[in-house]
Amino acid sequence: MLIIFGASGDLTARKLIPAIYNLYKGSHLPENFVVLGVSRSNMDSEEFRSKVVLESEFLKDKIAKEDPEFIQKFADKLFYEDLGTAYDTSYEKLAKRINELDKDYKTGGNLIFYLSTPPSLYETIAKNLHDQGLTQENGGWKRIIVEKPFGYDLKSAKELNQGLHTYFHEEQVYRIDHYLGKETVQNLLVTRFSNSIFEPLWNRRYIHHIEITNAETVGVEQRGGYYDKSGAFRDMFQSHLLQIVSLIVMEPPISADPEEIRDEKVKALKSIRIMKDEETIIKNTLRGQYVSSTINGKKVKGYREETGVNPESTTETFAAIKFFVDNWRWKDVPFYVRTGKAMPTKVTEIVIHFKTPHHEVFKSQDVYRKDNKLIIRIQPDEGILLKFGVKVPGLGFHVEQANMDFYYSDLDSAQVMDAYERLLLDAMQGDTTLYARADEVEAAWRFVDPILNCWENHPAVNTYGYAAGTWGPRNSDDLIEDSFGWRNPGDLLTDESGFCVLC
Amino acid sequence: MLIIFGASGDLTARKLIPAIYNLYKGSHLPENFVVLGVSRSNMDSEEFRSKVVLESEFLKDKIAKEDPEFIQKFADKLFYEDLGTAYDTSYEKLAKRINELDKDYKTGGNLIFYLSTPPSLYETIAKNLHDQGLTQENGGWKRIIVEKPFGYDLKSAKELNQGLHTYFHEEQVYRIDHYLGKETVQNLLVTRFSNSIFEPLWNRRYIHHIEITNAETVGVEQRGGYYDKSGAFRDMFQSHLLQIVSLIVMEPPISADPEEIRDEKVKALKSIRIMKDEETIIKNTLRGQYVSSTINGKKVKGYREETGVNPESTTETFAAIKFFVDNWRWKDVPFYVRTGKAMPTKVTEIVIHFKTPHHEVFKSQDVYRKDNKLIIRIQPDEGILLKFGVKVPGLGFHVEQANMDFYYSDLDSAQVMDAYERLLLDAMQGDTTLYARADEVEAAWRFVDPILNCWENHPAVNTYGYAAGTWGPRNSDDLIEDSFGWRNPGDLLTDESGFCVLC
Repeated sequence: MLIIFGASGDLTARKLIPAIYNLYKGSHLPENFVVLGVSRSNMDSEEFRSKVVLESEFLKDKIAKEDPEFIQKFADKLFYEDLGTAYDTSYEKLAKRINELDKDYKTGGNLIFYLSTPPSLYETIAKNLHDQGLTQENGGWKRIIVEKPFGYDLKSAKELNQGLHTYFHEEQVYRIDHYLGKETVQNLLVTRFSNSIFEPLWNRRYIHHIEITNAETVGVEQRGGYYDKSGAFRDMFQSHLLQIVSLIVMEPPISADPEEIRDEKVKALKSIRIMKDEETIIKNTLRGQYVSSTINGKKVKGYREETGVNPESTTETFAAIKFFVDNWRWKDVPFYVRTGKAMPTKVTEIVIHFKTPHHEVFKSQDVYRKDNKLIIRIQPDEGILLKFGVKVPGLGFHVEQANMDFYYSDLDSAQVMDAYERLLLDAMQGDTTLYARADEVEAAWRFVDPILNCWENHPAVNTYGYAAGTWGPRNSDDLIEDSFGWRNPGDLLTDESGFCVLC
Repeated sequence: MLIIFGASGDLTARKLIPAIYNLYKGSHLPENFVVLGVSRSNMDSEEFRSKVVLESEFLKDKIAKEDPEFIQKFADKLFYEDLGTAYDTSYEKLAKRINELDKDYKTGGNLIFYLSTPPSLYETIAKNLHDQGLTQENGGWKRIIVEKPFGYDLKSAKELNQGLHTYFHEEQVYRIDHYLGKETVQNLLVTRFSNSIFEPLWNRRYIHHIEITNAETVGVEQRGGYYDKSGAFRDMFQSHLLQIVSLIVMEPPISADPEEIRDEKVKALKSIRIMKDEETIIKNTLRGQYVSSTINGKKVKGYREETGVNPESTTETFAAIKFFVDNWRWKDVPFYVRTGKAMPTKVTEIVIHFKTPHHEVFKSQDVYRKDNKLIIRIQPDEGILLKFGVKVPGLGFHVEQANMDFYYSDLDSAQVMDAYERLLLDAMQGDTTLYARADEVEAAWRFVDPILNCWENHPAVNTYGYAAGTWGPRNSDDLIEDSFGWRNPGDLLTDESGFCVLC
């Protein structure tokens, strides 16, 4: 049984119920599976079913194509419980309802609590579940899924973990980061460790530097209030991007066992060199905030003009960082990571820059394109691109860069699962590989904390405006030595066309 | 000035003149360039021009598209000299003609003699040129181009070289192998030595075995008489395929200087382990001869029924060999090379099989597809294909093979030159890179000789029939250990469609 807290919220209708519907449709769920929505909205199960299934805008395309009987059968598996406002008795009532459903539908006492609520409620909910005896694994397993953000800084993350650990064992806690549910993120592991040709090159001897770009075209949209307190670094880097970093950096795990993989990821995060003094931080980081501009003749708002944003906000909407990984494999290889809103294209990609050949046998046409690059595109067009040198046809032995590419969509073997589908199914099956462990979250904060503190102490240092629709502050290129600069996939403001073979 | 001996022959009209025309059209030739055709046919210059240009079936498409004045201007650069039958005075007459043309057209005493004649005439021609003072480089350079076959065995190759060396310095001798004029063959060097990602993997530590296939769909066609004395091994392996082997095997040259590259190629050939005893040869080689079959409902002749072939011939039309390279880089890596006529598709490709990952983190879907492969296609669709493992979309971490490809035709930077164009131009410019040196030819024969001797002593051993239109004798797969078998690109008899992504 899946019990969703915050069931009247946006995520439930937009992501969770559609994911569960797809799993059901794909016969991934047991026949006796049920969902119980919980929140403080006054609704009954029928109204809940209408809202999230029968009249849902997120399922309407699928419903239109499906037998109404099948849809009704699915809707009948959804239930709703109004927690009400009577705090002292509401959890008693909830426990009763859960136990009834468990008995009626023979769900074997297996419960997943999905907390789609503000993190401030996590501990309270966990305590109440515990007090009602709903966390004891003496009959069926009990698991709790919590949404990011996992804390606001190291201190709050620790408190959050301690709070959860008072009522649940770490093995029962599933910290969801939908980024890790993406196929290409998982494919990073497979690409590295199921091939013999990449791993020998995957180290300081052959890699010159590594670049990760996460760009969004949109501004903060409706999230101004939340975002202004968080900023790009906390919102994207601490969670998603450090997860990607850990998958690039990690050593080969002993096996594909979830704990083995997570052990290696934690080790990877712990090996990132923490910047202790402010001088180092200021030298190796850079912030930006988008300002109003005109894109394709259309005026676009600046960050400070967005709803919910303080008009004098110094919150960054762009962050770039250079750091090193202090271990045997990566010593002295710079990592460059940037993330930003209101940029020219929506893209997340990793660029592995290999060193140029140490001895130049043939003259290259263009000295800046001599390095081999492996580009791993996480979104939007998931795939892999390899840039290498070939002979320019004709006389002599001139070299130019060619591309070999693979798009994940070319595989017809199976349908790609949505991140939430994959993650929910994993949680049901007790596979924690793609969920963040407490020590992993804390290791990430340990690196991020001093930077956020320094930035807070010096709000104006290394902070630049950039026109909405551009690649961030111009001097972000200065962060990268040897005049490599960032790879900007596609040069047009409106380019959404995937790999730019000219780049 | 280019002087072609055997100018009335097929190659001149079919390859040489069209190549020269293209070079002229592409402004690669100096304005005062002239061609003198020489042979024993009774023709004058006008007749020669008609035959090889104005009425040539090999140029008619180009002529149709061109200004007649331009064509006539090109034809006027061609001359013909009938050597006649008066052997004692004919070369005196030829020398006089050459000197006249040189003076009239101010070609600066630069002469290239192209010997498109049977090899048995090479020494006689060289001697006569020498006796007429046409080989002395005291005014302009003098070069001689000879066509393969370069000898019939080591002894005759040495004699041929000695014959040439009596009258020319080795630096003046250009042994032409049109295979080396192919872009993709040259690109092998660039791919290996202008990239940093291939060379680290290019050795015994990462490569499991290397496979080279050269297949032709046709039988011996009109060449039965010549072929029956030569056989597949002498015709293809000794020359073209050992050239490819040397480019795969060679160490990085100091520079792209022709002598540096040829030094490394010779070293590569010398490092191939010579099979000295017959037992080793019989164990590591296999011959085949195609027999009559029906392809797509059409009856196809067997080799012994071909014109010019001895009806009891034991000449091989298919040869497969396994050998090792005794040097630091390649010790214990098996090389498998096969060549054959009357096969299912026309293809030449190199397959680098990398070792499977030494530690298996994820379970592979198909145990026989676990190895990473780099496939270099020489013809017909020149390109590179990389086969590697990616995650099967969906649950778990299953691995399947994906393809990344690059086709040479995707480069739009320059038109690919025909092999003869490239080679003729190189000879004019004194670039010997793509020409075989005397010691290179002899090194190749040194490896091939004992095998041919053994086969001659045991004509029936390891010789099998195969149906025309199949991949050679079935037991040729037994040559490859570990049940890898040969990669047969495309499974259909009529497949000419390039990379078979299912293979």
